[in-house]
Amino acid sequence: MCRFLLYKSNSPILLADLLTRPAHSIIMQSFNDKLRLDNRQPVNGDGFGIGWFDEPGTQGCIFTSTLPAWSNLNLQRLAEKVKSALVFAHVRATTGGTATAESNCHPWQYGNLMWMHNGNIGGFRRIKRRLLSALNEEIFLSIQGTTDSEHAFALFLSMLENPKGRADFSYQELHQAMLRTIAQLNEWLDEAGVTDEDGDHELSLLNFAVTDGQSVVCTRYITSSELPAASLFYSSGSEFRPETDSGSYRMAKANKREDVVVVASEPLTYEKSDWLAIPTNVLLVITPKLNVHLYPIRDKYWNPHRFHTTS
Amino acid sequence: MCRFLLYKSNSPILLADLLTRPAHSIIMQSFNDKLRLDNRQPVNGDGFGIGWFDEPGTQGCIFTSTLPAWSNLNLQRLAEKVKSALVFAHVRATTGGTATAESNCHPWQYGNLMWMHNGNIGGFRRIKRRLLSALNEEIFLSIQGTTDSEHAFALFLSMLENPKGRADFSYQELHQAMLRTIAQLNEWLDEAGVTDEDGDHELSLLNFAVTDGQSVVCTRYITSSELPAASLFYSSGSEFRPETDSGSYRMAKANKREDVVVVASEPLTYEKSDWLAIPTNVLLVITPKLNVHLYPIRDKYWNPHRFHTTS
Amino acid sequence: MCRFLLYKSNSPILLADLLTRPAHSIIMQSFNDKLRLDNRQPVNGDGFGIGWFDEPGTQGCIFTSTLPAWSNLNLQRLAEKVKSALVFAHVRATTGGTATAESNCHPWQYGNLMWMHNGNIGGFRRIKRRLLSALNEEIFLSIQGTTDSEHAFALFLSMLENPKGRADFSYQELHQAMLRTIAQLNEWLDEAGVTDEDGDHELSLLNFAVTDGQSVVCTRYITSSELPAASLFYSSGSEFRPETDSGSYRMAKANKREDVVVVASEPLTYEKSDWLAIPTNVLLVITPKLNVHLYPIRDKYWNPHRFHTTS
Amino acid sequence: MCRFLLYKSNSPILLADLLTRPAHSIIMQSFNDKLRLDNRQPVNGDGFGIGWFDEPGTQGCIFTSTLPAWSNLNLQRLAEKVKSALVFAHVRATTGGTATAESNCHPWQYGNLMWMHNGNIGGFRRIKRRLLSALNEEIFLSIQGTTDSEHAFALFLSMLENPKGRADFSYQELHQAMLRTIAQLNEWLDEAGVTDEDGDHELSLLNFAVTDGQSVVCTRYITSSELPAASLFYSSGSEFRPETDSGSYRMAKANKREDVVVVASEPLTYEKSDWLAIPTNVLLVITPKLNVHLYPIRDKYWNPHRFHTTS
Repeated sequence: MCRFLLYKSNSPILLADLLTRPAHSIIMQSFNDKLRLDNRQPVNGDGFGIGWFDEPGTQGCIFTSTLPAWSNLNLQRLAEKVKSALVFAHVRATTGGTATAESNCHPWQYGNLMWMHNGNIGGFRRIKRRLLSALNEEIFLSIQGTTDSEHAFALFLSMLENPKGRADFSYQELHQAMLRTIAQLNEWLDEAGVTDEDGDHELSLLNFAVTDGQSVVCTRYITSSELPAASLFYSSGSEFRPETDSGSYRMAKANKREDVVVVASEPLTYEKSDWLAIPTNVLLVITPKLNVHLYPIRDKYWNPHRFHTTS
Repeated sequence: MCRFLLYKSNSPILLADLLTRPAHSIIMQSFNDKLRLDNRQPVNGDGFGIGWFDEPGTQGCIFTSTLPAWSNLNLQRLAEKVKSALVFAHVRATTGGTATAESNCHPWQYGNLMWMHNGNIGGFRRIKRRLLSALNEEIFLSIQGTTDSEHAFALFLSMLENPKGRADFSYQELHQAMLRTIAQLNEWLDEAGVTDEDGDHELSLLNFAVTDGQSVVCTRYITSSELPAASLFYSSGSEFRPETDSGSYRMAKANKREDVVVVASEPLTYEKSDWLAIPTNVLLVITPKLNVHLYPIRDKYWNPHRFHTTS
Repeated sequence: MCRFLLYKSNSPILLADLLTRPAHSIIMQSFNDKLRLDNRQPVNGDGFGIGWFDEPGTQGCIFTSTLPAWSNLNLQRLAEKVKSALVFAHVRATTGGTATAESNCHPWQYGNLMWMHNGNIGGFRRIKRRLLSALNEEIFLSIQGTTDSEHAFALFLSMLENPKGRADFSYQELHQAMLRTIAQLNEWLDEAGVTDEDGDHELSLLNFAVTDGQSVVCTRYITSSELPAASLFYSSGSEFRPETDSGSYRMAKANKREDVVVVASEPLTYEKSDWLAIPTNVLLVITPKLNVHLYPIRDKYWNPHRFHTTS
Repeated sequence: MCRFLLYKSNSPILLADLLTRPAHSIIMQSFNDKLRLDNRQPVNGDGFGIGWFDEPGTQGCIFTSTLPAWSNLNLQRLAEKVKSALVFAHVRATTGGTATAESNCHPWQYGNLMWMHNGNIGGFRRIKRRLLSALNEEIFLSIQGTTDSEHAFALFLSMLENPKGRADFSYQELHQAMLRTIAQLNEWLDEAGVTDEDGDHELSLLNFAVTDGQSVVCTRYITSSELPAASLFYSSGSEFRPETDSGSYRMAKANKREDVVVVASEPLTYEKSDWLAIPTNVLLVITPKLNVHLYPIRDKYWNPHRFHTTS
């Protein structure tokens, strides 16, 4: 299980204010992520990646490393210089024997699209061949690593028209492609007998996030109608800023303006009221103008009761 | 283009005497490999790997690194301690955009089998999907990296019965599987239009080496009936040992005994008479008792004239 | 704060049985080390090192990495092959801004001597220059990194006669040099005002371990007469071996023979009775014949009450 | 021997246009640096570093890696995004047993000052202790690695008043501190008997470069009155830009404006007339307004004849 964070705002933030300076940053989450569902691998020390965009309509930049985020000098120095209004960040714990390699670090990009995943596709090995055969040649050959997450991205890309050549996408289009990706994975997992409601059931945790540099679509999803998905929270306000010198940050809420939206596996501030849990099996859209929409994913795992009662 | 070395003997050699102490070792070849065919990437600084067996019938051990071999302290320290009678070593230069990652470092192993490759499969991208679909599920899922070389190993494995469960193989069996691997690659390359004798022709350089810990089979091969393959030499004698303190090594030849066989992309000693060039498109077998056999690979690229005249 | 382990026995153990297979191995301690005194940096993910000897009277071999131990393929493969009767192992968490670099990974060696440290020298920066000026030229120039631990080793070396040229040392000699090292550090820390009994007091945690390949001397020590030092346990018996297939290990105690001694920052087995806490401010000697002696370190921090009541 | 490059201009350049896209970039120089004086270590594959400033009066940013520059994905991606009007870049070949570690990668920074070095201090080990003892405590403790180059930077810093606290320096001040650094090194090397005109003479190659983000001072220097120093060239013009799509770059010279100055160990373009060799034992200043001044370093190694005849 890994951790991710995404940030979108009207004006650029210094990456340090998001990634390295907050006492409860995603970097610190590398050490201590209490909300994880899976306790077998408690440390996100198997690499990390950050992606950011400088201007809409251009490809983002990615920096990845197989060294733990918390001791990476390059990350610390870059974070003090780079500003961006759209940031993805991910820390990784290897699962399922997947190698620690830069090619297995999130996020990935393809054209202007950027993708990351927190969770895992249960029984991925049993649908990997099926998934590969569904990809067109260009997307098939673009895969550099061995993770289920990168393969899910490849599947997502194959749901879009001309994913490499275009500068931007409507958020509706990304929304639909995301739903189709999850539906297709479920169909194959069912066929492969991975998800068998009556008997054993290997769970998939599908917290995906994708952006074209303008809109963001992400999900909190699990292949179960009873269990909660891996945690995912969001917060919005006028500015994400330090409260004190000690690394304590707050989401300021001046004049009810919504200039910043943050989605993260775990709250980044100690102020609980800043954060809303995204309900399980829900898709979240951040529009280019920073409106946030939540949509239930109404498939066979949809459970209105869970939606209303759990986090 | 990379470089490899394999060593088999009746009694163990200290790895340092093979890998780090010789003035003209494969480590130094990382810097300066004058016999390479391809000059676009003149430095084998993109990682290396060594594999060795301690006793027949057990799995070998592999040490790989994405750091250049020449400055790797762990390699230098291990080489001063580890002894083995069967050693594979490989230094790597990335080609074709393949990532520098440990999962892309040679050699690979599967059960007791160990594999490395010097060269590349021309037009590999055009047959990759075909190759994957020919693999059984277990071998398909064992692939960890993205290189053509590892995929060729997977194809080789699929030519064997029960490649994982067996302790050893006859050298005839490895020999046949190697020929079938090359034949199968050629068939697919032809079908994909990669190798078109009349028009453009993307060459494959297939210097493969495989061992089960007892026999060794390797090839010097090119998909051309005119051009020479990537260089490959062998030497045999009673002992590979230092001549002086200055790093100069010799293949000693006491009593005409054949206790050591070395195959390498480039001679390891300055004494030219120690080394024989393996002819192009020839397969070499080292039997468990250290007999060496050369077999022409008589397919459409076989050229008796080249066999008799070139190195 | 880091973690270490040392193992000495009459017959070699496969490193995997010590380092990677035990459910509660030092590798797993990288994730979850509950007994640590210092909670600021809860993860030992900043590199590791192992050192081992194959035969008495020769230099040991060291393998270090800045990648976390738990995902290091080379470590896992080597551990399945290497056997040794004298092993040092260390996992590291960076402290005090020290860089993650191979040159800062424990253990270090000098001639036949090998050294590691769990803890830190409080206020090291204030005595660093003093320490360097006390070293002879050869030892001064041998320092490759920036850690307090390596500098403490250099100081220890300067307490011995001809530390590089000799094959072995008596354990009495190592014992005395260790005491003099701690005494010298204390003297300088006092002079620099770091250790001020009346006012602020920056603590040093000096769990040191040293071996010449035959004897082992280690300490559990703190510059305080009240507080406990960083934890350190030992266990002895006839064999350290797996109890079940699930990774559970035990210290077997057949015939009251003492063929194995293990000292570790944290117990390696779940059987509490296997392990004795080494009292605070005590030096432990393992003789070449595997006798274990404990000696109180009777300086100004010695506290008989703590010795008798605490772990 | 290593290689360096520095770039200063009136308007920012995309790092890719300086570092990764030119056919003869410093990255390619990692492979093939024909002008090197020392042939023992022909490959600059032991790490690299780049430093750049975004605005005058702020600290620069540094990105270093121990992996070879030519296969570093992060470098390639960053170079496509980052723009700067003042860039330092360095590729490294380890010498004298210095470890490959990030802390040993150039450039280094201290406050707003940035430093790199091509060459080596001959006999550095014999003056290291002397040098350390001349540093004040803060500079002494700031040293993170073991290279002669970083120690020379520390010495340079100790020639300045308040090197950490100030935003900028006059170029005259940097100029004087550089001369005093070289003079001090020479004095110590003489005292230590390293430089003995009559007998053996261990050479120092001191191509240093320093900047405060506004001015640049660099040297081409050798401790010999006869031999040439390590090569150093400069070029100036109106723009450094691609001529063709094939990676060929030129220094454009529109209207005789001097908007760009580049200093590099080897010419970056194939047009020889673009480049002037900086004479041996000369100091070059680039003022904030891009004026370039050359000053002979008139010490005992000054040789007017060499100045007028050699490159």
